[in-house]
Amino acid sequence: MSNTILEDKTVLSFHSVAGFRTAGTHCGLKPNGDNDIALVISDRPCQAVGIFTTNQVKAAPVLYDQAIVARPDAQVRGVIINTGSANACTGTDGLARTRQTAQLVAGHIGCTPGEVLVLSTGVIGLPLDMDCMARGITDLAGQVRPDGWPDAAAAIMTTDTRPKLASVTTPEGYTLTGITKGAGMIAPHMATMLAVIVTDAVIARSVLDKALRRAADHSFNRIVVDGDMSTNDTVLVLANGASGITVKDEAGFQAALTELCTTLAQAIVRDGEGATKFISLHVTGAADDAAARTIARQIAVSPLVKTAFYGGDPNWGRILAAAGYSGASIDPDTLALWLLGADGSRVIQLVEGGHPTNYDEPAAIAHMQQAEWGIQLDLGMGDGAALVWTCDLSHEYVTINGHYRT
Amino acid sequence: MSNTILEDKTVLSFHSVAGFRTAGTHCGLKPNGDNDIALVISDRPCQAVGIFTTNQVKAAPVLYDQAIVARPDAQVRGVIINTGSANACTGTDGLARTRQTAQLVAGHIGCTPGEVLVLSTGVIGLPLDMDCMARGITDLAGQVRPDGWPDAAAAIMTTDTRPKLASVTTPEGYTLTGITKGAGMIAPHMATMLAVIVTDAVIARSVLDKALRRAADHSFNRIVVDGDMSTNDTVLVLANGASGITVKDEAGFQAALTELCTTLAQAIVRDGEGATKFISLHVTGAADDAAARTIARQIAVSPLVKTAFYGGDPNWGRILAAAGYSGASIDPDTLALWLLGADGSRVIQLVEGGHPTNYDEPAAIAHMQQAEWGIQLDLGMGDGAALVWTCDLSHEYVTINGHYRT
Repeated sequence: MSNTILEDKTVLSFHSVAGFRTAGTHCGLKPNGDNDIALVISDRPCQAVGIFTTNQVKAAPVLYDQAIVARPDAQVRGVIINTGSANACTGTDGLARTRQTAQLVAGHIGCTPGEVLVLSTGVIGLPLDMDCMARGITDLAGQVRPDGWPDAAAAIMTTDTRPKLASVTTPEGYTLTGITKGAGMIAPHMATMLAVIVTDAVIARSVLDKALRRAADHSFNRIVVDGDMSTNDTVLVLANGASGITVKDEAGFQAALTELCTTLAQAIVRDGEGATKFISLHVTGAADDAAARTIARQIAVSPLVKTAFYGGDPNWGRILAAAGYSGASIDPDTLALWLLGADGSRVIQLVEGGHPTNYDEPAAIAHMQQAEWGIQLDLGMGDGAALVWTCDLSHEYVTINGHYRT
Repeated sequence: MSNTILEDKTVLSFHSVAGFRTAGTHCGLKPNGDNDIALVISDRPCQAVGIFTTNQVKAAPVLYDQAIVARPDAQVRGVIINTGSANACTGTDGLARTRQTAQLVAGHIGCTPGEVLVLSTGVIGLPLDMDCMARGITDLAGQVRPDGWPDAAAAIMTTDTRPKLASVTTPEGYTLTGITKGAGMIAPHMATMLAVIVTDAVIARSVLDKALRRAADHSFNRIVVDGDMSTNDTVLVLANGASGITVKDEAGFQAALTELCTTLAQAIVRDGEGATKFISLHVTGAADDAAARTIARQIAVSPLVKTAFYGGDPNWGRILAAAGYSGASIDPDTLALWLLGADGSRVIQLVEGGHPTNYDEPAAIAHMQQAEWGIQLDLGMGDGAALVWTCDLSHEYVTINGHYRT
């Protein structure tokens, strides 16, 4: 059994984006002295769109941001992000502190509080310490700079072991750069994750909004660490138009945004709490895409499957069993299962027609010891398909989450 | 963080039941030499009823037994139970081996194969070794005796750490005795668990069937270890009438069967894979019972909640978050949460109106270090309620399931 936490081989480089400045610092929300607050500001108003947790228990900053981005004429100048406190389950007082946070930022930028978005992550129920926030915001306002992205990415980490940032430049000449965090409480349809993506493209709000939803379907909505869904999940995209380049090729923008979101989403799974393996889970041949998604998600959250991934045990029976109780209709006699390479190629077929093949067990075990590989479960029923990126469930996951607050 | 696996304080004593004889032995299905096969026989035909996994991937013995107990005139003389191989995902060959197993038993008892039920548990996909089965059945046929229950209970263990058997005697004078196994892959609505319960009462099949379903709703369908649902789950009840006592008080029979099933089901959770804590999870004030069950189940399967239980961390935010994404409708502002004693009494209120109370954190931590306690989540919406028994998610769970087959 591997006890090595998964290394991220991807070098997440970044580009500055015209008109945006960022910084990260320590304001005292994290008792251990780590950086815990980040600021992203634009020198001009941005189009802003967002997607948010579907959890019915929503944190104060989620409720606050949702109201702002819901306005068709929303203009945003800054995003402030704190860790250490999720400001969730904090009632009207929590909402008041979120508003006060926006006011503090607005005072430094010289805009209205309604032009500032607020993201919080950390322990649920803890009141946001406004003395810390005020100190942090003042510090950050004096530190923001065009190449401050690595500091911002580092300051929003919680149980993450490394900062996550990425950039995409486009043939049309504009740039997208994003930061994200999230390592546990990760489920499809958002998770304990935050992401802020900015671009200097000139783009209509309606196009931006549609592009974000499509990109999220192919990235953030495809990841599972532990299946828990948080109160604070938020992905924001800000477009300030500072490049002067108007997006003419909307498909090109969609591709760039999807690529960026995919890189960031995969980085979350690679840094999943205690993860030692990154696994691409392809479900094909389902009655429809929805059924494929249901099955893929059930496999990805199964503790028995995830511990078998950890042990590198080709215990395909657990995968078939998870598919069988997912709620989606399957035919046990038409199931086929393959181990895939990191590139998606089929390496070893484990199951055909619902029964085990005469596969090479030592080879299968060796394959599963690798840090990155995949599985394909074909249901043999139709054309429905789904892809989920997930990780294993290790001793380290239990250690991290048995000790989170203490 | 406690690393002590939960001890079962309950002494599971048993009574012999008139007309039934049992035994357990080693036939070679388990490479480590542990006992791996058990036989229960009745000296006369029994009424037989059963409930089975709802997993669409059903093991051969499940399909076989379902067909038998579905017949209104079903008469059963024996139950053979093996571990080491689940005989699931084994196709028509698997079904043939189940039938052959029944034939072997029938030959020793002197009945028809259709009067023998077969239960299997263990690794999925492994063909059942019929040489082992034949040897084991021959040995068992020579060993069965009225007080063989502890041996039978021990022989059906897989990752269980101790045998699980219990008895109830009734005012009317008949007896019920049952054995069960199951430690992982445990979810509501059956799990990787098998149970065989026998009684010497004279009882109509229709009454017995209804009583089993009600008893299971209050026992086996209330337990969660890891939320996985197996291909082999089966609970059987056999009534041979050997006491000569006809059940007149049907409510009394129901109460006795429910008590027995509850004892056995709780024993499974107390012996849950790696379990260090036994937790009773009460959800009250839901819109209806179905919503309460959905929420209770989501809390019970949440890895973040279960690791917080393991660490003894009163991280109530994770419980509220799990309720919020369960799919059942809740009002975040009317949630209340208590830590309960092992007797169900309220000890510490953690949340009121969706916000944390000013509770005594060290006292809450100390309470959660105990081996047995509960939580109550009241939704403040209606009269719906549900009760689930569950355990924590420990390092040992990961060790057990990362290594199961190797």
